[in-house]
Amino acid sequence: MINYNSEYLKYFAAQIFIRMGCPEEQAWNAADCLNQADLRGIDSHGVARLSGYVRLWELKRLNAVPQMSIIHETPGTALLDGDRGLGLVTAPHAMRIAIEKAKFAGTGWVAVQNSNHYGIAGYHAMMALEHDMIGISMTNASPLVAPTFSKSRFLGTNPIAVAFPSLLQPPLVIDMATTTVANGKLEVLQREGKDAPLGWTQDKDGNQTTDAYSLKKGGSMLPLGGDREHGGHKGYCLGAMVDIFSSVLSGANYGPWVPPFVSFLEPPSTQVGKGIGHFLGAIRIDAFRPATEFKENMDNWIQTFRNAEPSVGQERVLIPGDPERELTVERLKNGIPLHEQVVTDLKKLGNSFGLEFDDKPEIIN
Amino acid sequence: MINYNSEYLKYFAAQIFIRMGCPEEQAWNAADCLNQADLRGIDSHGVARLSGYVRLWELKRLNAVPQMSIIHETPGTALLDGDRGLGLVTAPHAMRIAIEKAKFAGTGWVAVQNSNHYGIAGYHAMMALEHDMIGISMTNASPLVAPTFSKSRFLGTNPIAVAFPSLLQPPLVIDMATTTVANGKLEVLQREGKDAPLGWTQDKDGNQTTDAYSLKKGGSMLPLGGDREHGGHKGYCLGAMVDIFSSVLSGANYGPWVPPFVSFLEPPSTQVGKGIGHFLGAIRIDAFRPATEFKENMDNWIQTFRNAEPSVGQERVLIPGDPERELTVERLKNGIPLHEQVVTDLKKLGNSFGLEFDDKPEIIN
Repeated sequence: MINYNSEYLKYFAAQIFIRMGCPEEQAWNAADCLNQADLRGIDSHGVARLSGYVRLWELKRLNAVPQMSIIHETPGTALLDGDRGLGLVTAPHAMRIAIEKAKFAGTGWVAVQNSNHYGIAGYHAMMALEHDMIGISMTNASPLVAPTFSKSRFLGTNPIAVAFPSLLQPPLVIDMATTTVANGKLEVLQREGKDAPLGWTQDKDGNQTTDAYSLKKGGSMLPLGGDREHGGHKGYCLGAMVDIFSSVLSGANYGPWVPPFVSFLEPPSTQVGKGIGHFLGAIRIDAFRPATEFKENMDNWIQTFRNAEPSVGQERVLIPGDPERELTVERLKNGIPLHEQVVTDLKKLGNSFGLEFDDKPEIIN
Repeated sequence: MINYNSEYLKYFAAQIFIRMGCPEEQAWNAADCLNQADLRGIDSHGVARLSGYVRLWELKRLNAVPQMSIIHETPGTALLDGDRGLGLVTAPHAMRIAIEKAKFAGTGWVAVQNSNHYGIAGYHAMMALEHDMIGISMTNASPLVAPTFSKSRFLGTNPIAVAFPSLLQPPLVIDMATTTVANGKLEVLQREGKDAPLGWTQDKDGNQTTDAYSLKKGGSMLPLGGDREHGGHKGYCLGAMVDIFSSVLSGANYGPWVPPFVSFLEPPSTQVGKGIGHFLGAIRIDAFRPATEFKENMDNWIQTFRNAEPSVGQERVLIPGDPERELTVERLKNGIPLHEQVVTDLKKLGNSFGLEFDDKPEIIN
């Protein structure tokens, strides 16, 4: 692991997107989204994923110059056609529309069809904060998760993000997959040669397993909660809800028809909609009560929960968003740690676009 | 257990509410909400809870003749003061406002302050279905749940319900507490003298436990997921989200300040808002795409997931709402089974209002 300057990685990603043909503003927007993932510690959704987007573009499964268009709208809603653009571009665009709608109607909601992987859900939700709005963001994703009682991979990790503004405290930011764990945690166990806890995955027959490789052997991830006894059917409900808002409401592909992010897997031969889908929302606080009153109460909520009594053996109680915020401070200072294979991948990527990936960028600040 | 005619139980509940002074229409609305809980098998929220509402009214913690008023509104939102009314009355009222707002703005959202326990979350969400809208409903509740890493009871079971219309298939209805299990399941284990699975509750120090009585001994319920390793922090996020939407956005009591439903517990001595809070939403399908297209896709979604391959040892894969719908058919035919102590309670309640609870009402249809 070498640490890289966060600003440099953002610059590099933007240059790659520009060389793909993305309009400059969109390229920087997309690069910022990857960069925020790296800063917040969601390494799987940061610059490590850059070459994945490029490969989809090379296969013409992704359009670098999308003509995004509003298909239908009301005072508070819109349906956006993403024209096969980067989700890193279509989702922020949709969120800006939602924010504008909310200024008039109180809330704004935009469903997006014909899009691609949109990075971390939290990025788009957080766009609402500076407008004194609550931001909501969800997307469906390639099917890896089985419904309760089933062994069919029919749902993605289908994340939900919600960002609430506060006054003096940092905002409360929820950003969670609707599965027990993310795939990245299984990969950590594989590297360490360890077993997985029960409730994370099941084998190809739908049996409980502790095999950290179960997913690679045809098994599936479990919805939040794990098995039925531990409330896994509720995680299944959440995953279903995200799938329907993102893609049945928008006219994108849902369930087993969601096209894969990885370029070596072909999209399903039949389609039930266009691309993948997102659902973005902005809720103006003062459409309900004065923003300052709300934000003062949020501060009190946050301080109260932070001062909850820790369980025996625990040091402190966290607020949603705390770990990511603390890591951001640390990584802005010390840089983003990248695996050797990610560095190799970025160098190769740079070469193919006539851009040198600087091996030892000055470490910052 | 004796089975009672569902229509009779609804009639009885309505008569009690009318004798409390509720306007006739509101009384029937509230009775219908309890009745739907009984039909759907959520026995803890049905007629068994009737005397609980009455006791709160006797203590003047609940107002039978609320003057509900809109404090603030925009084209797509409203803040409703429930004037300490039954949540069984304020929430349907709020949902009707949300539906009207959605007709113009595309979506409608109503936050409710100064309310009380609102029965099953799903009832209010399902009100949107006949308008070709998606319904959303959430409420906070008396604190019984500990945030991750904490032993403080700071959150309620804070349910979320979402109802999606479909065409020929039954609607897809999600109605879930954001905890691993409901309290009722612990009571079943207590009656049977059995232990609880790990991940349901923790003891008063915040340790894992299988003691089915842990909650009664000062322990707490766990958010969906259970401990941190199994994603319990995500359940904590969901519970927090419901608390904030329901009560920070509306100006009701949040977190540890939520007043208890049970009359033998005093409300907290300090208040940070008014009563308990709800958040209701209606999303008009054709604010995004033609309702028939959406509903056809919903039918396909439902059929696809119902035909998912069952795990070894499982017979079939369920759709959210299936178990409740099937039970409704059965209970409409065979009646609602009531525990002996519930019957005794209802007889006593009837007597105190000069109304005889008929012990052997003609069993129906």
